[in-house]
Amino acid sequence: MSRYFVSYYSTRLSTTMDEVIVYPIPAALYLIKNLLQYYIFAYVDAPGYQILKNLNTVSTGVLYQLILKKKLSQIQWAAFILLCAGCTTAQLNPSSDHVLQTPLQGWIMAIIMALLSGFAGVYTEAIMKKRPSRNVNVQNFWLYVFGMVFNAVAILIQDFDAVMNKGFFHGYSLITTLMILNHALSGIAVSMVMKYADNIVKVYSTSVAMLLTAVVSIFLFGFHLSLAFFLGTVVVSVSIYLHYMGKPPK
Amino acid sequence: MSRYFVSYYSTRLSTTMDEVIVYPIPAALYLIKNLLQYYIFAYVDAPGYQILKNLNTVSTGVLYQLILKKKLSQIQWAAFILLCAGCTTAQLNPSSDHVLQTPLQGWIMAIIMALLSGFAGVYTEAIMKKRPSRNVNVQNFWLYVFGMVFNAVAILIQDFDAVMNKGFFHGYSLITTLMILNHALSGIAVSMVMKYADNIVKVYSTSVAMLLTAVVSIFLFGFHLSLAFFLGTVVVSVSIYLHYMGKPPK
Repeated sequence: MSRYFVSYYSTRLSTTMDEVIVYPIPAALYLIKNLLQYYIFAYVDAPGYQILKNLNTVSTGVLYQLILKKKLSQIQWAAFILLCAGCTTAQLNPSSDHVLQTPLQGWIMAIIMALLSGFAGVYTEAIMKKRPSRNVNVQNFWLYVFGMVFNAVAILIQDFDAVMNKGFFHGYSLITTLMILNHALSGIAVSMVMKYADNIVKVYSTSVAMLLTAVVSIFLFGFHLSLAFFLGTVVVSVSIYLHYMGKPPK
Repeated sequence: MSRYFVSYYSTRLSTTMDEVIVYPIPAALYLIKNLLQYYIFAYVDAPGYQILKNLNTVSTGVLYQLILKKKLSQIQWAAFILLCAGCTTAQLNPSSDHVLQTPLQGWIMAIIMALLSGFAGVYTEAIMKKRPSRNVNVQNFWLYVFGMVFNAVAILIQDFDAVMNKGFFHGYSLITTLMILNHALSGIAVSMVMKYADNIVKVYSTSVAMLLTAVVSIFLFGFHLSLAFFLGTVVVSVSIYLHYMGKPPK
């Protein structure tokens, strides 16, 4: 009987102001981060941006430790630095060194974006875990309702004319629809990772996904395996091993 | 009195056949490795060879564990793989991927050279440590006497005509002399590392020397710091930290 009650309680949509008030924060942080993404390309090219995105790993680790007060062991910290270095190594290409010439504004924007993204991730985890019995889809609902509200405001400000003239769905193709579906599914998956695992698991799985995507590209698109990719994969693999080995004793 | 006796005993040059018989082995191994070095360039270019030389790190670690029966902890093994990957990453340049096109003969030669070099290193350590009270310079003397004998034979076979026509010291310049002096001093240093530390310390210090040389080159020769060099240095630094952290409890 008590179990049924918990289950009923956890899937209800109606909720207290006290609970809902926290959900707009990650949505706002992600909005700012996503808007910054358009401006940073004035300072770095796309491959350079891919490399700078690896700063997310570091910021997530630091904020995770600071805010959630969960301790990573020293070995796990070493593993985390390796994860970041290994992913970046795997993405190296002959023009990667351009990123070292990024102007100061570009670096500052990249660091702000990394902090916003890391903070939003850690904050989301805190929200998702605060009420362990609340259904993850309900939590996701509130998270994305505010995401929709904020993005609607951004559309009104930035693209009002375009939407009025050509309609909201102008330019949508099959690929666009599939991309949206993909993002929606990965949004659900990420929320589940936040609730049942943590940001560290998310960062590791994102990195492995990046490497697997590259391996699949070899077969699908004839990409060449570079020595840098091989070395980066070795470093990421050792990092995963060390993260597991370095678990603090309970 | 007893201390004086040990000291006298340990610096005497005259020794039993039983002790000297082991010294020709590393000399012969190094000779074969050095001769192979001339042939491998038929299959790889100089930057590719520099990259393949990192296989030495792996072979030294494996043979160290197998022959000397000293256990590295799992964390130290992970650190060792990282050392190898980090050094290779630091040496990456836009043409490094050529090394992946090395023909099978080149790979086999590189692996044989790595095994010879690793085995010679581990064997030398075993010799140097077998008689802890024997003076390191005496041990070095015997090691290099056989090196001189073997190389004299190689000169007789390969360069007899050139030496007879132009003399042994033809082409020696100040730089040549300084190089010889440098090699002689590093030979003494390596023997001391073998006697008082071990092959693992040697491999780590060689790697750090490689990185420091590159950093010095930035100031002396205006080399550009590449992103790959930076990432490789991060990985090597973490590797050194992990090697220290992962020491098996005594």
